[in-house]
Amino acid sequence: MQRDNRRNRPTIERNEKESWIYGVNPVMEALHSGRKIFALYTLANTGHDHARTVMDAARSQGVPVKTEDRKFFEDRFPKGHQGVAASLEPKKTVDIEELLEIPEQKGEVPFFIILDLIEDPRNLGAVLRVADAAGVHGVVYQSHRSAGITPVTAKASAGALEHVTMVEMVNIKHAIEKMKKADITIVGAEGGAGMSLWECDMRGPLALVVGSEGEGLRRTVRDMCDQLVSLPMHGAVNSLNVSVAAGILAYEALRQRERGTST
Amino acid sequence: MQRDNRRNRPTIERNEKESWIYGVNPVMEALHSGRKIFALYTLANTGHDHARTVMDAARSQGVPVKTEDRKFFEDRFPKGHQGVAASLEPKKTVDIEELLEIPEQKGEVPFFIILDLIEDPRNLGAVLRVADAAGVHGVVYQSHRSAGITPVTAKASAGALEHVTMVEMVNIKHAIEKMKKADITIVGAEGGAGMSLWECDMRGPLALVVGSEGEGLRRTVRDMCDQLVSLPMHGAVNSLNVSVAAGILAYEALRQRERGTST
Repeated sequence: MQRDNRRNRPTIERNEKESWIYGVNPVMEALHSGRKIFALYTLANTGHDHARTVMDAARSQGVPVKTEDRKFFEDRFPKGHQGVAASLEPKKTVDIEELLEIPEQKGEVPFFIILDLIEDPRNLGAVLRVADAAGVHGVVYQSHRSAGITPVTAKASAGALEHVTMVEMVNIKHAIEKMKKADITIVGAEGGAGMSLWECDMRGPLALVVGSEGEGLRRTVRDMCDQLVSLPMHGAVNSLNVSVAAGILAYEALRQRERGTST
Repeated sequence: MQRDNRRNRPTIERNEKESWIYGVNPVMEALHSGRKIFALYTLANTGHDHARTVMDAARSQGVPVKTEDRKFFEDRFPKGHQGVAASLEPKKTVDIEELLEIPEQKGEVPFFIILDLIEDPRNLGAVLRVADAAGVHGVVYQSHRSAGITPVTAKASAGALEHVTMVEMVNIKHAIEKMKKADITIVGAEGGAGMSLWECDMRGPLALVVGSEGEGLRRTVRDMCDQLVSLPMHGAVNSLNVSVAAGILAYEALRQRERGTST
């Protein structure tokens, strides 16, 4: 934990050895997932019933439980901490080769999501919820110019962060290249694309690529996609949050797979 | 504008005569939509190029432009104000009878979204983005125990608030009753439902009902639905943000309508 001198408040930086999460769901899921938790911090007289459930779960796993005052939480975390936080080992990411082996190990058709410069950690967290719910084998994101695994990401993921396999790349294009060599079809979401998501056969090995909130896909990423698909728009603003777009695309892929038809 | 004594900062309350919005997109969309804007407030030396675009658009419509300091914005608005805010007439909602006439006027098959106690204004805003993009004829929400039209709702909607028809009900059950009498099929999203969204024919007159973040649909609302559908879940956490669930459901309805098939 470092001190941000501009605002004279403690800030929490990701480092090699220690990470932080806050909120009931993220901490409960971390306890369930087997990530090593160094300590649980709870607010004295929190008033949240759920906080007691978390404390009991932590104690049963031998995790030290410390009581802190409201200032401890308000200094460190945004609203929504619910009087519960934990310091723990950073989430382990895997490398792209490991990711590509997972579908075969599971006997499933590959299904990945690739994020092109998603900057808002809440959006990254919301995409992780989609990835978990849709049973995606892993999410690939870029280390630079993108949101990473922060306490806000964990909170917005409602705990899905603990369960989704993640690959951090210096450049996602290298992941796309490796996937293409493995005969995975790269389908990019692109507002202006002539093909709608419903016209694209997503039953085979698939990686969905979704772009940044403002800009969409970078041109160089777009050029690497095997298919570009659009979500039909019928309104005035016609913009969807990236996690909503990812959810619509992922569930269309699931529909085609479960129904056995791409039409 | 009132003062919240607990925190000694000005807060912005919705009232009958004046409403507030902040951020470039919400203000630009309000300027486009014809909602009466009393004044535009901009941050001196904002550094945002977009702020100048907003100022030019406001001046061209005869809207007074006032310059304020950073404290003005930080006291009143969350992060994301981008140095732009506006005071304006409150958004006009319509009553349920007016809403039900809209599809016929447009010669379209009715398509509504009903919100059962969505408490987070950011989620409400995100659902409005979905409603706009999917061309929904209107969104029905409840005045009590729910998020309403706040500056945060407007911001999270990315401006979609200006374009989506909204109905505020004391109790959404009255809206459901009226819709059922108008032969609109009420389809509720329910985690445990045996029927998946892909098995439900949503091509006819339709109202999708989505429930609160934590609790889902109230039992009494669930009992009024003609169909309950689930989103298949393949993960560990298996929870989707309400706006993501609404997006997946709305786009499945669009798919069935545009492709002319429910399978």
